[in-house]
Amino acid sequence: MIVILVKNVTDGQMDQVLARIAEAHLTSHISKGEETTVIGVVGAHLPPDLPDAIERLPGVSRIMRISKSYKLPSREFKPSNTVVEVGDVRIGDGGLVVMAGPCSIESREQLLATALAVKKAGAQVLRGGAFKPRTSPYSFRGMGEEGLKILADVGAETDLKVVTEVMTIDQVELVAQYADILQIGTRNMQNYQLLEEVGRIDRPCVLKRGMSATIEEWLLSAEYIMGKGNKQVILCERGIRTFETATRNTLDLSSLPVVKRMSHLPVICDPSHATGKWYLVPPMSLAALGAGADGLLIEVHPDPDHALCDGAQSLTLENFSTLMDKLVAMMDLMNRP
Amino acid sequence: MIVILVKNVTDGQMDQVLARIAEAHLTSHISKGEETTVIGVVGAHLPPDLPDAIERLPGVSRIMRISKSYKLPSREFKPSNTVVEVGDVRIGDGGLVVMAGPCSIESREQLLATALAVKKAGAQVLRGGAFKPRTSPYSFRGMGEEGLKILADVGAETDLKVVTEVMTIDQVELVAQYADILQIGTRNMQNYQLLEEVGRIDRPCVLKRGMSATIEEWLLSAEYIMGKGNKQVILCERGIRTFETATRNTLDLSSLPVVKRMSHLPVICDPSHATGKWYLVPPMSLAALGAGADGLLIEVHPDPDHALCDGAQSLTLENFSTLMDKLVAMMDLMNRP
Amino acid sequence: MIVILVKNVTDGQMDQVLARIAEAHLTSHISKGEETTVIGVVGAHLPPDLPDAIERLPGVSRIMRISKSYKLPSREFKPSNTVVEVGDVRIGDGGLVVMAGPCSIESREQLLATALAVKKAGAQVLRGGAFKPRTSPYSFRGMGEEGLKILADVGAETDLKVVTEVMTIDQVELVAQYADILQIGTRNMQNYQLLEEVGRIDRPCVLKRGMSATIEEWLLSAEYIMGKGNKQVILCERGIRTFETATRNTLDLSSLPVVKRMSHLPVICDPSHATGKWYLVPPMSLAALGAGADGLLIEVHPDPDHALCDGAQSLTLENFSTLMDKLVAMMDLMNRP
Amino acid sequence: MIVILVKNVTDGQMDQVLARIAEAHLTSHISKGEETTVIGVVGAHLPPDLPDAIERLPGVSRIMRISKSYKLPSREFKPSNTVVEVGDVRIGDGGLVVMAGPCSIESREQLLATALAVKKAGAQVLRGGAFKPRTSPYSFRGMGEEGLKILADVGAETDLKVVTEVMTIDQVELVAQYADILQIGTRNMQNYQLLEEVGRIDRPCVLKRGMSATIEEWLLSAEYIMGKGNKQVILCERGIRTFETATRNTLDLSSLPVVKRMSHLPVICDPSHATGKWYLVPPMSLAALGAGADGLLIEVHPDPDHALCDGAQSLTLENFSTLMDKLVAMMDLMNRP
Repeated sequence: MIVILVKNVTDGQMDQVLARIAEAHLTSHISKGEETTVIGVVGAHLPPDLPDAIERLPGVSRIMRISKSYKLPSREFKPSNTVVEVGDVRIGDGGLVVMAGPCSIESREQLLATALAVKKAGAQVLRGGAFKPRTSPYSFRGMGEEGLKILADVGAETDLKVVTEVMTIDQVELVAQYADILQIGTRNMQNYQLLEEVGRIDRPCVLKRGMSATIEEWLLSAEYIMGKGNKQVILCERGIRTFETATRNTLDLSSLPVVKRMSHLPVICDPSHATGKWYLVPPMSLAALGAGADGLLIEVHPDPDHALCDGAQSLTLENFSTLMDKLVAMMDLMNRP
Repeated sequence: MIVILVKNVTDGQMDQVLARIAEAHLTSHISKGEETTVIGVVGAHLPPDLPDAIERLPGVSRIMRISKSYKLPSREFKPSNTVVEVGDVRIGDGGLVVMAGPCSIESREQLLATALAVKKAGAQVLRGGAFKPRTSPYSFRGMGEEGLKILADVGAETDLKVVTEVMTIDQVELVAQYADILQIGTRNMQNYQLLEEVGRIDRPCVLKRGMSATIEEWLLSAEYIMGKGNKQVILCERGIRTFETATRNTLDLSSLPVVKRMSHLPVICDPSHATGKWYLVPPMSLAALGAGADGLLIEVHPDPDHALCDGAQSLTLENFSTLMDKLVAMMDLMNRP
Repeated sequence: MIVILVKNVTDGQMDQVLARIAEAHLTSHISKGEETTVIGVVGAHLPPDLPDAIERLPGVSRIMRISKSYKLPSREFKPSNTVVEVGDVRIGDGGLVVMAGPCSIESREQLLATALAVKKAGAQVLRGGAFKPRTSPYSFRGMGEEGLKILADVGAETDLKVVTEVMTIDQVELVAQYADILQIGTRNMQNYQLLEEVGRIDRPCVLKRGMSATIEEWLLSAEYIMGKGNKQVILCERGIRTFETATRNTLDLSSLPVVKRMSHLPVICDPSHATGKWYLVPPMSLAALGAGADGLLIEVHPDPDHALCDGAQSLTLENFSTLMDKLVAMMDLMNRP
Repeated sequence: MIVILVKNVTDGQMDQVLARIAEAHLTSHISKGEETTVIGVVGAHLPPDLPDAIERLPGVSRIMRISKSYKLPSREFKPSNTVVEVGDVRIGDGGLVVMAGPCSIESREQLLATALAVKKAGAQVLRGGAFKPRTSPYSFRGMGEEGLKILADVGAETDLKVVTEVMTIDQVELVAQYADILQIGTRNMQNYQLLEEVGRIDRPCVLKRGMSATIEEWLLSAEYIMGKGNKQVILCERGIRTFETATRNTLDLSSLPVVKRMSHLPVICDPSHATGKWYLVPPMSLAALGAGADGLLIEVHPDPDHALCDGAQSLTLENFSTLMDKLVAMMDLMNRP
C-alpha cells in the first residue's frame, strides 16, 4: 500500500498516519518529493480494510493498493497453467474445448437431437439449462430436476460430458449428482455463499464473469471457490455491460489474454450470451480463438424459432457444424491440438 | 410488440412471420411505409420469449417491445403512491426517513453509541450489517446471528426500527426474527430465489439497485418480490458502475424522479456506498432530497478510522448531526413533513 | 511516479529500470516488501511519456502516477475559489447563476419572448445556440451569424448577459464579438486547438464535460485553455454516457463536490441535456443545487412542441418560472445569496 | 416512427398528436391493443426533430424511431462492399491490409528504420503522427509539417502508402499534400466541421470510432463525410470506454461483424490504442482477423522504451514481424488473399 499525503501535510498529521500504520504491525518507508510525500507500507499481512481507514485520516490525499488482492488464482502463486480434467476432456492444455447445446432443456427429444448433432460436429461437452435465471418472472424458468435427469441421460447415451447452471446453495448437491461440470452464472458471480458451497465439492466449475465485474473482481470470486478447496475453476468471458446497444453486451475479448497473464486458470468464451444474435456467434467464436480462448460455450437449438429461451442467439445444427469446420482448421493453423 | 421488416422482404417471408404470430394467438396489423414495413402485434398475452424467436425469422430486421415488462410495481397498475409502514415510521408519504448506522455491527458498545447519536440527530431507523457481502474473502464478513441479536436489542433500547441485509434464502427467516426491515444488497438484486423468498414473508424490504442494472431490471426484481405477495418494497438507488473512478460508483440521482414516474413504490438513496467517500455524503444527501428521495441510508460510525468495514465512507457522529440539521431545514422549505 | 516490479525481478532488470530513471534526471527510492518491490521516483519534472516507456521494461509489473497531471485548475495551485465576473454577474461566489433560453435561436420573436420571461423569473444569463453540433447532418444546425446578431440584440434589449456555443477555431473571434460568455460543447471538450484558441481571448468560457470524460480529463482540458492565458473557465457537468437508457445521459452530480475539492473553478450543471426530458429538469435542478452547483444551464422554449431542436427537454416559460421560485427558496435556506 | 400512447389517453390528446403528425405532412396508422395504443407514422420525409416534439405532447408515453438515421453508409443504400483503393492497395476486397508505424514521427532515421522493417514484414501502409492530440498539454504534440515531409519522403523511398491524422479544418489541405490516407481520430469523430472538410476532398479517410460513440453515431459521422462527396471512408474500431481498467479501453470486436451487416464500408481495427499494452496487440490482432477485419492499424517503434509517445503499446520491429507471420498463415486458412 502507498499512502499519498496532501501537499501541505503537517508533522502532526503525518505522525498520526505513521502511528495508525504501526498499530497494524506494518512498516512505513517515507519518500519526500518536491510535489508530494508518499509513504510505502510494507509488512506480512495488510488488513483488507486498513486502506479505507487510513484514507480518511487528515493529511492523506489518497491510497494506492499494490499487492494483488487475490492469491490462489494468480500466476505468481502458481506459474504453470491449470488443466481442468473432466474424464478425458482436458480444458486449458492448449486445445479448444467446445461446449454446445440449448439454452434450456425442453424435452428429451430436443436435447438428444442437439447432442447427436453437436457431437458429430466435434463438441466435447453438452450444455443445457435446467434452472434458468430470467430477468422477468414470467419467462420460462427451466424444467428443474426433470431437466437434470434428461441431461445426464442424454450425456450418457451420446458419451458427452454435461455442464449446467446451479443457482442456489441447496441446488449444489442435487446438480452435482447429474452434471460433470457446474456453471455459476453472471448474476451469481458475487453470490459468495454459493461460490463457497461450490468450493466445497469436488467438481469442475465454469465461473462466468459478472456483467459489470472487473477482471480483478472476477478473480476474487474464483478465490472464494478455490479457498474452500475446489481448484477446478474454468473462467468464462460472456460480455460486459456498456453503453452500446447494438449487441446485448459487449464481448470483452481482451480479457482473455489479460487473464492468461494474471492467472493460471483456463478461460473460455460464451459468444452467444455476449452478443445475443446468432449471426454474430461464428465471427466472435473465431475471434475468441484468435484471442487465446481455451474453449467456447455456444447455444445450439434444433428449431431456434420455437426455442423457449434465447432463440435469437442460438445457432441451428447446420450453422454450428459449419462453424466447427472453421474452428478446427484454425486450430490446426495455430498449432493447437 | 412491433416487428420491423427488412426493406426487401418477400411475400413468403412476411407470410412466415404472420403465421408465427398467429400460432401464438396474437393479431397482426401491417403498416407499409415507403422505407419500411412494420407489423404491430396485439393480443391478450405476449409469450416473453416470442420476440426473440421472431427476430431470427428471415425478412425480420428487428423487434421493438412496447408493453412494459413489469406490472405490479408500475404506476399504471397502481396510480397512488405506496406508503410502507414500519410501526409509526412511514416511508413514501412525502416525508424523509433517515436510516443510519455502521456498515458492520462490531460490538454492542459501538452500535449503542451510534444508535443514541443518530436517534438524537433525528434518524428513525438504525442500520447495521450482520452478514456482509465482501469482494474479497479475506475482509471482515460480519458477526452473523450474534450481530442480529445486538441489533434487535439496541433497536429496542433506543426505540429505533432496525434494517439489516439478508444474503441467502436460509437466512431470511432468521433475519426476519430480529429485523423490522430486510435489505437485499446490490449484488443480490438478480438473485431470484432470494427475491422470491423475501416475497413470501410479511416484512418491508429495501431492494438496492444492482450496480449494472437498468431501472427496468430493478423494477422487474421488485416484481419478483411482489409477485409472491410481499408488497412492502422500498427501492434504494446506490450508484451504478461507469468509467468514472473518482467515486466508487456513479450515483444516478435521475433514477429517483424516473422511478417516481414509472412506479408507485417509495425510493430512497444510499450516498455512502455510491460515492465511497465520507465528504461526498452531505452534498449528495441534500442532492437526493432535491431529486425527491423518500429516505436516505447513511453510514455512521463513532470511530471511522478504526471501522472494520467501509471506514472511508462513514460519517462521524458529529458530521451526521450537522447534516441532519441541514436536511430538516430543507424539508421545511420543500413543504415536506 | 511509483514503479511496481514483478515478484521475481532480477538484479539486471532492476538496474535497467534505475538507469532509465536516472537518464531522465530523476531520483529513485527503492522499498522492498515481502511480496513486492517498489521504486518511488522523485524529481523536478516528470516527462509525461516516461511512465509508458518504463512500463514496458522487463521486470516492471506496472506504474502508478501520483502527481496530478493538471496544475492551473487545481486547488493546490490556487486555494481560493475563482469567481468569474461577467459585468455584474458573478459565477462562483456562493450564489446561483441561472442561464436559460432555447436550444437554438429560431427567430427574434422566439428569443425575445423567452428572454423577457426568463429575466422576469430571475435568470441572469440568456442562452441560445447559433451554431449547433448535431449527430445527424440532416438536423437543424442553427442560424449562424444571423442568430448571433439576434442574440446580442435581445441580450442588450433585456439587459441579460448572453452565452452561446463556439464550434471551430475560425468562429472564436466572430462569436466573441456577440457573446459575453463562450461555450465549448461536450463533443469538443478534447478539441485541443479550439481550447487553445479560446484560451487566447479574454472572455469567460463554459467548458462542458465530455460525455465520456473523466473528471481528471475535464480538468486537463481546462488546463489547455488556462495555459494560453484565459483563466475565466466555468466547468459544466452535463451527464456522462452509461448503460442506462431511461435518460439521455447519466447526470453525474457527484462530480460537483469532487470538482469543488480538486479545483478552484466554478462548476455549473445542465440538467436539460443530461436527462433529455423536460419533466426531469426541475428535480435535477434542485438536486444540483443541493450538490453545490454555482449555476444552472436550462433549456426554455415558448412553444417546445414546435422547437427546431431538443423540444423534448425544454421547459415551457411557465414551468421555468415555477422552478425558479423553488430554487430561490432553497438558496435562502442554504444561506446562499 | 412509432408513437406509443399512455394507457388512459383521452380522445382530445390523441387528436392533438394526430394533428401534429398531419401538420408535418405525414400519415398516421392507429392500432389499438388491450394494453396500449400505438400510432405508426409513415411518410416521405420525417423531420429529424419531430420525434422530440411529439414526445412531449400530453398522452404520449414514448417514441420509437424505426428508420435508420444514416443513409449513405448503409447496406440498404448500397448492397455491395465498398473497396477503397490507394494506388494498388485495396481495402475492403477480402484481404487484410496492415498499416504500421510509430505513434509519432520523431526523426527521419526513426521512421525509415520502422518503414523498412514493416515493409519487409508485409505491411502495405506506413502510419506516423505529425499532429498529435494529447490529453495533457505538456505531452509531446508532434513535429507538425516537418513530420509530414519526413512521412511523405520515407513513404516514397520505401514504396509504402502513408496515413496520418488531421486534427483541424485548416490542416486538411496541408495534410492532403503529403498523405495518401487521412485519419480522423477518436476525439474528433463528432467534430462535424472537420468531417465535412474531409468530405470535400478526394482522398481516402480512416474514421476512428469515438470512444463513447455507438455504432449508429459512428455511421452518422461517416454520413457527414460522404454527404459532401468523399465516399472513400474506412471505419476503424479502436475501443470504447467502459468500467474495466485492465486495458486502456475495451476493444469492441463485435462491432466489426455488426458494421459489416449494417454498412458497405470497409472496417479495420486498431488494437494498439484500444488495449494500451504491447503484449495484448498480437492476440487482439488475430482476434480482429477472426471477427472479419479488413485491416489493422498497429503501432511499431524501433526503440519503444524511448518513444516520445505511447511507448507502452508499441511493438518492437521483431515482435511485429512475428505477428505478421501468424496473420499471413491465418489469412491463408480463411481463404482470404
